[in-house]
Amino acid sequence: MSEKVVVIWSGGMDSTALLFAEREQGNEVFGISVNYGQRHSKELDAARGIAADYDINHLVVDATGIKAAMLGSALTDNEIDVPEGHYADESMKDTVVPNRNMMLISLGIAHAISVGAKRVAYAAHAGDHAVYPDCRPAFADAMHQAASVCDYEPIELSRPFVYMDKGEVCAAGLRAGAPLERTWSCYNGRELHCGKCGTCVERIEAFGQANAEDRTEYEKSLA
Amino acid sequence: MSEKVVVIWSGGMDSTALLFAEREQGNEVFGISVNYGQRHSKELDAARGIAADYDINHLVVDATGIKAAMLGSALTDNEIDVPEGHYADESMKDTVVPNRNMMLISLGIAHAISVGAKRVAYAAHAGDHAVYPDCRPAFADAMHQAASVCDYEPIELSRPFVYMDKGEVCAAGLRAGAPLERTWSCYNGRELHCGKCGTCVERIEAFGQANAEDRTEYEKSLA
Repeated sequence: MSEKVVVIWSGGMDSTALLFAEREQGNEVFGISVNYGQRHSKELDAARGIAADYDINHLVVDATGIKAAMLGSALTDNEIDVPEGHYADESMKDTVVPNRNMMLISLGIAHAISVGAKRVAYAAHAGDHAVYPDCRPAFADAMHQAASVCDYEPIELSRPFVYMDKGEVCAAGLRAGAPLERTWSCYNGRELHCGKCGTCVERIEAFGQANAEDRTEYEKSLA
Repeated sequence: MSEKVVVIWSGGMDSTALLFAEREQGNEVFGISVNYGQRHSKELDAARGIAADYDINHLVVDATGIKAAMLGSALTDNEIDVPEGHYADESMKDTVVPNRNMMLISLGIAHAISVGAKRVAYAAHAGDHAVYPDCRPAFADAMHQAASVCDYEPIELSRPFVYMDKGEVCAAGLRAGAPLERTWSCYNGRELHCGKCGTCVERIEAFGQANAEDRTEYEKSLA
């Protein structure tokens, strides 16, 4: 049965895959993207462009001021360099934005209540568990419980990718017709994907694992 | 033992009472206030003034843009009138801001991680349970659980007033030396407290229950 669902939509690969998977199931999708002052706000432009071309309801929340409460991350603090290398590296902890996902989910639930949706979906996946506590099943479960009692009617928090790796997420997105080549991953947020930061490395791997052509243009040839 | 604690601080009576209670216990208090576009943003000025005069660490987060995700409340939507009467009245549901407390707690936790605090306190109390789902024990418990797994180290969510009524909160605040007469409650946010909206009625009752003089100046004499 078709239902309204709010998708936390960064404009990256995972959430875009989720949004199209929900859409393919015939649901009425409301994407919500948040500008929290991230260095790579280009991801928001990616979401805007896809929303426009695919006729998707899309709310971009201007919350740049909340950065003041989320200091100490390479993604919100220009004094800290974005680390290069693989997601599994210890240095990747510099890219954790304090409590970002709880804040994004909070706003997603608020938007759901406002538009009359009973469900919010977010794209946490197993590839992020090692680095990001707020992508782990225990966190997702706790937030689902909080969502069920935060308002007069329960809100459900879906996290269908939470036990998938990013290659499986990529494959699921492509099956659902998601234009993943238009998504933005790179934490540096320059003109092209850098190809070297943790999220670029993971993006490249994901297309490979999904046996899909990676049509992303990177700063340097990866050959 | 003294510890750092972040207090979600609206500038109203309850959170100011909590902040001073934490302070009286010798803790290093960090108040966080959020401008989410509330009609009664005068409460933020109350917090700012108290913070300055009592030398309290205070972060005011400018998040007016998030109002876009929290529509449908008399507190964030100028098209909806603030209801008069008692908190117990059904009309008071118009003052519920969708998922506001989850958002405030999210930012409080982020701030705690940023400043190295292991605990966040919020002033939900039993007087609010009837109207506001996000002041009830079940919600507070779920958020405490989420806080315990949202980052590398657990954050504790304290809610010491959750089974007290507002009169007891008022009394606790006064015992801790809180300048409650300087706090702001009124949802209308005009020059003086209106004395008629739900939160003014509750404020008046609380001072009475605490057997304390109410030095608030109201728009009309309440005699």
